[in-house]
Amino acid sequence: MALNSLGREIPASYAGRTLTPYRDPFSNQPSGLAAPRPITRVNPGTSKLVGSLREAIEASGLKDGMTISTHHALRNGDYLLNAVVNEIAALGIRGIWIASSSVHPVHAEIIPHIKSGVIAGFQCGVNGLIGELASKGELQVPIIVRSHGGRARAILEGSVKIDVSFIAAPCCDPCGNLNGYFGPSACGSLGYAQSDALHAACVVAVTDNLVPYPAVPVVIPQTLVDFVVQVERLGDPAKIVSTTTRITTDPVGLQIASYAAQVIEASGLLQDGFSFQTGSGGISLAVADKMRSAMRRGNIKGSFGCGGITGYFVGMLEEGLFSSLMDVQCFDTEAVRSIGVNQAHQEISADLYANPFNRGAVVNRLDCVILGATEVDCNFNVNVNTESNGYLLHNTGGHSDTAAGAKLSIIVAPSIRGRLPIVRDQVTTITTPGETISVVVTERGIAVHDRHPELKEELIRRKLPVKEIHDLQKETCRITGTPRPLDFEDEIVALIEYRDGSIIDVVRRVKE
Amino acid sequence: MALNSLGREIPASYAGRTLTPYRDPFSNQPSGLAAPRPITRVNPGTSKLVGSLREAIEASGLKDGMTISTHHALRNGDYLLNAVVNEIAALGIRGIWIASSSVHPVHAEIIPHIKSGVIAGFQCGVNGLIGELASKGELQVPIIVRSHGGRARAILEGSVKIDVSFIAAPCCDPCGNLNGYFGPSACGSLGYAQSDALHAACVVAVTDNLVPYPAVPVVIPQTLVDFVVQVERLGDPAKIVSTTTRITTDPVGLQIASYAAQVIEASGLLQDGFSFQTGSGGISLAVADKMRSAMRRGNIKGSFGCGGITGYFVGMLEEGLFSSLMDVQCFDTEAVRSIGVNQAHQEISADLYANPFNRGAVVNRLDCVILGATEVDCNFNVNVNTESNGYLLHNTGGHSDTAAGAKLSIIVAPSIRGRLPIVRDQVTTITTPGETISVVVTERGIAVHDRHPELKEELIRRKLPVKEIHDLQKETCRITGTPRPLDFEDEIVALIEYRDGSIIDVVRRVKE
Repeated sequence: MALNSLGREIPASYAGRTLTPYRDPFSNQPSGLAAPRPITRVNPGTSKLVGSLREAIEASGLKDGMTISTHHALRNGDYLLNAVVNEIAALGIRGIWIASSSVHPVHAEIIPHIKSGVIAGFQCGVNGLIGELASKGELQVPIIVRSHGGRARAILEGSVKIDVSFIAAPCCDPCGNLNGYFGPSACGSLGYAQSDALHAACVVAVTDNLVPYPAVPVVIPQTLVDFVVQVERLGDPAKIVSTTTRITTDPVGLQIASYAAQVIEASGLLQDGFSFQTGSGGISLAVADKMRSAMRRGNIKGSFGCGGITGYFVGMLEEGLFSSLMDVQCFDTEAVRSIGVNQAHQEISADLYANPFNRGAVVNRLDCVILGATEVDCNFNVNVNTESNGYLLHNTGGHSDTAAGAKLSIIVAPSIRGRLPIVRDQVTTITTPGETISVVVTERGIAVHDRHPELKEELIRRKLPVKEIHDLQKETCRITGTPRPLDFEDEIVALIEYRDGSIIDVVRRVKE
Repeated sequence: MALNSLGREIPASYAGRTLTPYRDPFSNQPSGLAAPRPITRVNPGTSKLVGSLREAIEASGLKDGMTISTHHALRNGDYLLNAVVNEIAALGIRGIWIASSSVHPVHAEIIPHIKSGVIAGFQCGVNGLIGELASKGELQVPIIVRSHGGRARAILEGSVKIDVSFIAAPCCDPCGNLNGYFGPSACGSLGYAQSDALHAACVVAVTDNLVPYPAVPVVIPQTLVDFVVQVERLGDPAKIVSTTTRITTDPVGLQIASYAAQVIEASGLLQDGFSFQTGSGGISLAVADKMRSAMRRGNIKGSFGCGGITGYFVGMLEEGLFSSLMDVQCFDTEAVRSIGVNQAHQEISADLYANPFNRGAVVNRLDCVILGATEVDCNFNVNVNTESNGYLLHNTGGHSDTAAGAKLSIIVAPSIRGRLPIVRDQVTTITTPGETISVVVTERGIAVHDRHPELKEELIRRKLPVKEIHDLQKETCRITGTPRPLDFEDEIVALIEYRDGSIIDVVRRVKE
């Protein structure tokens, strides 16, 4: 055990891997060469079409102990990971690692295969029941949680080696040119699948929309794809993308959004060339709505909107408030429609979006990002992975990536959630280091990190309710009472890997 | 010395490299892993802008004996390679290899730097005076000529290692996102620069059109670019792209085009889904024009047009005769306009276009390609590299790639050019093996390769002037006389590498 720079106990090794404790956001330097894949040759007249997922698995040469991946652009509507794991189990293959870009509640279907040893571990975070059971010690498999940029880095470095990647391809031709724009399972951007396509030893494109050659636009080219499989359905369209994403109507949420918008205006960043990311949550969208009004008022022409893209940002692009959208994932049908027709709506890979180890990611150019939290501590460290019951329920997503990249990273959260305070002495799990957070905005007050003294002064001048984060904590705890510390076993159920590959925290088994 | 399968004498080694003689078009299998590049890290706030080309060269760490590259999408209008070599010379760096995608007549300006030892050799073909002087023994540097697909393969394999790539970027932002669509030096597709961006140890984007971040569409992403340099002009717009490309008006050319079109119709390939490539020469365009008429008449919806793209193919796309264009290089202003606005006009890398060692290139899906020749022998082997005076004057381009990929590869050429016969006992240089050629069409008759007996029968049935290639040769030689064999020295001035890396021929010094 060693303490990392945030005071978390990090073991020397985990699941056979030597661990490096987290030190700071930016100084860790990569060494070595990008991970290469085998060169192959496909002559004219060779067919890549195989008859079924099972045939594709057999053709791929998947064996006990290997690593597979899928992408999560179909989100909770995805059928593919479950189908792949079922076929792997039926073939009698065991000890498989899953290195998908994310695992969603719908994938709870694979739990029996985890318990039976078909699945040996997760080189990715897990949303929902799998994480909960792991936290209870009911699943004896290692879980390594990475940010979107961290996953791209790990694949590029070769610290995660994907043997077979199964890419859900909403629009695909028989040679494997594919995009996510068209078809019954259209999901828009395939940003998370790009690293897999470039680095996996074998790539299987799986489609429910096999189109005549060539499928254009070519997002992933045939040069990277080994096999193509047609299936009846890739997913449930109703769960792949939302038909609408909505602004919060909750008065607390609206108050937070209003404060956040005023923080952005006070920061001086809201000028021509402004770049901005929010998620698809109700408060985030309310902030976006206020920025839209402010940009209209000030006749401000923004640069780019980034991240998971909603119809809200598409509207701002079409109105000329952004010159482009940088889209790693589409959150709603309007975003999917737009990316298929508008050249200024740019699909980007997770590598381009957020990898810390390349020649510069898009997050490095963000002026402002709006982020959520399950907990924040008095050093501004943020938890989004575990809930206050200690259960691992959420992935990191782009949280620590955008916080490190953006000039202004704003956490928006109600001061109290489920009768528990958001601001704590200690967070259950550190996802994102406080040194990359600028401001925490609650309906009860605004806390500004010490590295932004001028912003703090300006907020005070504007008579916004600026509070020291300790005061915000004490004030909230007077209402909620001080939460009882959780009891954990020593057993580690998951690693929280920072985007540079160092370990920022571990998740331990909750004592029942 | 060993004889390759086409009877050419291939030395055991050349310029320090062990050579593999050519055997056949398809059996050579790759082994090993793709060549990786160093991983690096660029934190937020880091600027990639450097003040001049010279500063960029210094920042890149270029040293004696290293290898540089440029792309040739600016064709004979390119200013960049000359400027780079001049700066390298001014910095006192020597022994540099040039691994550009092509070198054009405009680059004759660097000849003094070849003679002085600044330039040590060419990992690419050379068009124009450099090749002529090499053929005369006046430049003592090795030249290794590759096809477009072969170059992508060599870079992917690591048999050509580019230390610093200078990418002419007609539209580029300060982080190095770039495309070729917009600006004073707009050239359209940057297909030839893609492998360089992915594999060069250092990438310098050079632009005369620095636009606000982000430059969309992103064709080469910032994640691959180390430095960005602004220069006054990348090239001469009048020579970068033609304003128009025109159909031949020469009666011989029109007769050839008419025969070629009839061969395609007789082949049975002209049906829905037809895919087609021609060059930008007058005869090729005349064939394209006839195919357009035939497709209209037959109400045929083609699949894709491929290759260097002209306004002719753009018209066919917009008319619905093609569903897409696969564009590795734009030949005229209309093609440049189209690729910037039409999603069905797809930019493709040279790797996707033609690399024999990947998971399948676009050329593998071609129904028909129309190709030129300086000479053809009675085994259908084709020369495009040297002229009948023995001088190395032309690059291979996509010639051997498309011939190997297409179902029907048609050579169009006048039977006599400059009083010399096109069909010979022996060609001066073999560029493309006869076993990948289907038909040779001249105004004097049509020769069909033995591997297409049914096509031959059908052409005879249609009363087209089918002739044995030996008869075509004899008939032409009766008019021209038998050409006197050229005299060559033993000295090898260039290798002609086949697309798979084997050596299909060598070019020797011409005896004066």
